[in-house]
Amino acid sequence: MRKIEHIGIAVKSLETSNLLFEKLFGQPPYKQEEVMSEGVKTSFFMNGPNKIELLEATNDDSPIAKFIAKKGEGIHHIAFDVEDIVSEILRLKSEGFIVLNEIPKKGADNKLVAFLHPKGTNGVLIELCQEIK
Amino acid sequence: MRKIEHIGIAVKSLETSNLLFEKLFGQPPYKQEEVMSEGVKTSFFMNGPNKIELLEATNDDSPIAKFIAKKGEGIHHIAFDVEDIVSEILRLKSEGFIVLNEIPKKGADNKLVAFLHPKGTNGVLIELCQEIK
Repeated sequence: MRKIEHIGIAVKSLETSNLLFEKLFGQPPYKQEEVMSEGVKTSFFMNGPNKIELLEATNDDSPIAKFIAKKGEGIHHIAFDVEDIVSEILRLKSEGFIVLNEIPKKGADNKLVAFLHPKGTNGVLIELCQEIK
Repeated sequence: MRKIEHIGIAVKSLETSNLLFEKLFGQPPYKQEEVMSEGVKTSFFMNGPNKIELLEATNDDSPIAKFIAKKGEGIHHIAFDVEDIVSEILRLKSEGFIVLNEIPKKGADNKLVAFLHPKGTNGVLIELCQEIK
């Protein structure tokens, strides 16, 4: 875990929230991307060494649609940058964390990702992500 | 806004969660601190350019006690590092954000801090923080 790669924020409307976060950071998102497999449209803002990812659901079965229905808009996950996601998954499993993706999957922003179950991390959904070279 | 200074996580027990996050990061917290005025005990973990702050309530009126009663343990706020908190408060007010502390107050970890109301930021409690020199 080398840094906070990004914080993921669940929003109802990417269009509305892009404008809001553009005012907050003083600059527009540097990219927008749809991840079909997760049922989300995303946008990314740079903030120094970190990023903020906004996530809007594209269908009612999307994890983001379910999150907003249950908790409203807000912080959905924290993603940590890791150098070697496979060895980090093994390390965290051996420490007792519940890894939801033992085989990392392709996420947004050119990353291999895996999630830890929030039951084992004080209610925080944690994503590990490794840049695909 | 120069980077994510820290993410604040509300926990029931600092003692239990310190051990959990020590396993996650592979290192213990670098400091612990009580902020009497906020009714919290905190611990801080380094993660590259960022920090994770764990917060435990020290009384039932603490904002952290109320947060956990309502939402359970989990991410409580994101703090962004700013160079000049006074000018950033003025800028964000002029952009329409609701600033909860027009005069910054003393926070944990040697910082001047001010919060933005989550109603104006997609449900995210945002802290601005400036290092006290």
